[in-house]
Amino acid sequence: MHLIQENKCHGGYWRRYQHDSETCGCLMTFSVFVPAAAEEGKCATLFWLSGLTCTDQNFVQKADVESAAAEYGFIVVAPDTSPRNVGLDGEDLSYDFGSGAGFYVDATEAPWRSNYRMYSYVTEELYSLVADNLPMDPERTGVFGHSMGGHGALTIALKQPEKFRSVSAFAPICAPMSCPWGKKALAGYLGTDQENWKAYDSVALIESGAKVKTILVDQGDKDEFLAEQLNPELLKAACAEKDIPLTLNYRSGYDHSYFFIKTFIRDHVQHHHKMLNDVNR
Amino acid sequence: MHLIQENKCHGGYWRRYQHDSETCGCLMTFSVFVPAAAEEGKCATLFWLSGLTCTDQNFVQKADVESAAAEYGFIVVAPDTSPRNVGLDGEDLSYDFGSGAGFYVDATEAPWRSNYRMYSYVTEELYSLVADNLPMDPERTGVFGHSMGGHGALTIALKQPEKFRSVSAFAPICAPMSCPWGKKALAGYLGTDQENWKAYDSVALIESGAKVKTILVDQGDKDEFLAEQLNPELLKAACAEKDIPLTLNYRSGYDHSYFFIKTFIRDHVQHHHKMLNDVNR
Repeated sequence: MHLIQENKCHGGYWRRYQHDSETCGCLMTFSVFVPAAAEEGKCATLFWLSGLTCTDQNFVQKADVESAAAEYGFIVVAPDTSPRNVGLDGEDLSYDFGSGAGFYVDATEAPWRSNYRMYSYVTEELYSLVADNLPMDPERTGVFGHSMGGHGALTIALKQPEKFRSVSAFAPICAPMSCPWGKKALAGYLGTDQENWKAYDSVALIESGAKVKTILVDQGDKDEFLAEQLNPELLKAACAEKDIPLTLNYRSGYDHSYFFIKTFIRDHVQHHHKMLNDVNR
Repeated sequence: MHLIQENKCHGGYWRRYQHDSETCGCLMTFSVFVPAAAEEGKCATLFWLSGLTCTDQNFVQKADVESAAAEYGFIVVAPDTSPRNVGLDGEDLSYDFGSGAGFYVDATEAPWRSNYRMYSYVTEELYSLVADNLPMDPERTGVFGHSMGGHGALTIALKQPEKFRSVSAFAPICAPMSCPWGKKALAGYLGTDQENWKAYDSVALIESGAKVKTILVDQGDKDEFLAEQLNPELLKAACAEKDIPLTLNYRSGYDHSYFFIKTFIRDHVQHHHKMLNDVNR
């Protein structure tokens, strides 16, 4: 991995890297916040998954994670949201499919399956790259994200709870099988057989028995995508049925933007800190 | 003034407005953070002045001022850095003159003098617009900024210390008469007679007897513009000679970016809070 930018912030460093990804078959860019605590030992690590249209930079510049990450000693990894410039027909046609919209799935449909493998990219290739090159404690790794990335965080934690031991989300797409964004993406990447979509739907995963210790979700009640796309009540019902503790905070007056995220990011970092340092985990 | 965007953040609101500016002769855009405390009474107010190439949005999205502004009950006003789209020959030719580079002066040279009047825009027109439309306490108003905007903050406070009663800056252009950015801008806006430049040079203003109660400056020692453009040591010498208390913090490892600003913005908000609430002010 090749360092392309470095900025000191809150005593640590944001570092931006590029690497040739085997999983995605293209040059991928990601950013990592490395706190000062990393000079003294291995750190707990959070993978942040961003939403539609984002690169790694939206979170880096707008989320204000650094003060809490520095205080609690977290490495924070922010990948891009899709492969880039892979030359597939239609990759740049819409904001909610293709570039900037990888949906954290491994595509099975042509032509996307050759590159659009963001599930494996995040959980395997990028995870290993960070673990091999940065002072990451693999026993204390969590995942969080926003919107499409909230969906990614929930599904990744539900599918690999031993690898990603804490999870939270801001305004996640809770049930992609049940909303327009999700239906378009899952049909495009996975084909029309909806049985195959269940592996990437939080509600379906929970209904089929997947477990995590607890889930934290914050959701603005003025979120412009709440009514049509996000379905937190489906997540709430599934968690209730399967006895998964869910803290679902509706936040009065907040929208879908990073202004909402930055308001509550410290709460999320504290949640992960508590979960990852729980001796009974 | 016309509201074009509103986002809740840390219990308050970022509001973005446009208005037809008489001073600049064009449509101007600015943003204001209004804390929850404004619902209960008049608030202390900070004017933030941004650096070269910025609009109002750089500060809004990257500076992380909201948590401290909410805690201490500050209204924070973030204007644009120049008139826009006024049709002057060459206005968009360079990053350090014209659009995005108003330097907080009232131009006297043609053709700039017709629109490039950012000193009067900020200190008179925008000040009055905010005072008339928002719960701003005119007795508790301060000014701060970054780079070109740090120069703006220092010169405005030195010229109008009763109106702007507290001042701080991040990596300010301390002596525009003595650096390439400043020489280009002052010659372009004010003409070649350097006597006329002294009204917009912090060091010259202090040497000629201008006073403020105290100045806070933070400066990264890895700032890529420190050696050629910023001259904090000239400010330090002038303040020492004229007995103006200056706190000049060199911050190890920090550069010129908003990652530096966001690290220390809370310190600056606390500085203004202390200065504006000092009963002996």
